[in-house]
Amino acid sequence: MPRPANPRVRESLLDAGLTLFHSQGFNAVGIKEITDTAGVPKGSFYSYYSSKNAFVAAVLDHYWSGIIRDHGSLLSDETVPPMRRLGRFFGALTEDHAERGFALGCLIGNLALELSEEHEEARLRLVAILDHWSSLFAECLTQARDGGAMTAAPEATELASMIIESWEGAVMRGRVDRSRAPYDRFLSVSLPRLLGAVGASA
Amino acid sequence: MPRPANPRVRESLLDAGLTLFHSQGFNAVGIKEITDTAGVPKGSFYSYYSSKNAFVAAVLDHYWSGIIRDHGSLLSDETVPPMRRLGRFFGALTEDHAERGFALGCLIGNLALELSEEHEEARLRLVAILDHWSSLFAECLTQARDGGAMTAAPEATELASMIIESWEGAVMRGRVDRSRAPYDRFLSVSLPRLLGAVGASA
Repeated sequence: MPRPANPRVRESLLDAGLTLFHSQGFNAVGIKEITDTAGVPKGSFYSYYSSKNAFVAAVLDHYWSGIIRDHGSLLSDETVPPMRRLGRFFGALTEDHAERGFALGCLIGNLALELSEEHEEARLRLVAILDHWSSLFAECLTQARDGGAMTAAPEATELASMIIESWEGAVMRGRVDRSRAPYDRFLSVSLPRLLGAVGASA
Repeated sequence: MPRPANPRVRESLLDAGLTLFHSQGFNAVGIKEITDTAGVPKGSFYSYYSSKNAFVAAVLDHYWSGIIRDHGSLLSDETVPPMRRLGRFFGALTEDHAERGFALGCLIGNLALELSEEHEEARLRLVAILDHWSSLFAECLTQARDGGAMTAAPEATELASMIIESWEGAVMRGRVDRSRAPYDRFLSVSLPRLLGAVGASA
């Protein structure tokens, strides 16, 4: 009979998976390394997750919900002009990445490019996370439009997606170069240019 | 005594590595799978490459030189306005990716996000490839500026890098969504906005 799930063990597994997948990638890490890092017996992994593929989907949720918990309020802070909120959100992510010397990238992007056709559950989770991210930005963009700070086209969710894609590319380059420069140019040039802000300058 | 290197075997190994790393990733593929795909004995791998890490750096060069061989002339075609050349180059890459259902992404981006601190040789190769790519674009951008089609700031290599980063992010999203949509919006909106073309519309 399976023992009842212990939320603390589940959380330890997710924390360990996040740290290990983020620093080494998905395929480079085995389940034993995850359970060792979490400080639980290897066999207990399967009381919580049916497979490493199911686990990585849960780790993605764990990563994304951590970002929203830490920085999501920056996007809904109505005391700040809506377009400015995007810059503050990315600024906060940049400081997170700076703590790791820009060497790890974003787990969402890393897994988006490492996982392959056999990891369909994780792929669908990535689709859902990127859609959620786009929808949060689209809300800010719609408010900016309503306030006359932005031109109407393209559609807000599309524009939000383009901004996220540019960000992910900048993070990738930062990881290759171990450098803040791609983050800085994203914030100072790419973001305002993509926003096409009325009266904005690069 | 090592046998003399056979360029045809080397080419087969590089082709096999490119195909396998592109579809499955670096860590998911073993040397035996590479030599089996190349149709050579496993032991011969080490007559050509000292390690899988040295090999993946060579595979990156092989991938990038294929892109330049197939599409590089689009960037130097002086019968086409310089900014238009960038769009044509990305259009050609988009068709390459379409052949694989947008499922594989760009090997440069994939390895940039999969490889970790232990793959320093490949990381330096990625730096060199991205620098070369930026310099090719920067040449077009400088010509566009000299012709009055673009504003002066930011510096051409910086702008070229931002364009490449946006592209890589779009490719990532296309891989997650198995979709052409991120490619299309990059070409029709992100690229012209990033270029900040004088009189350009999205």
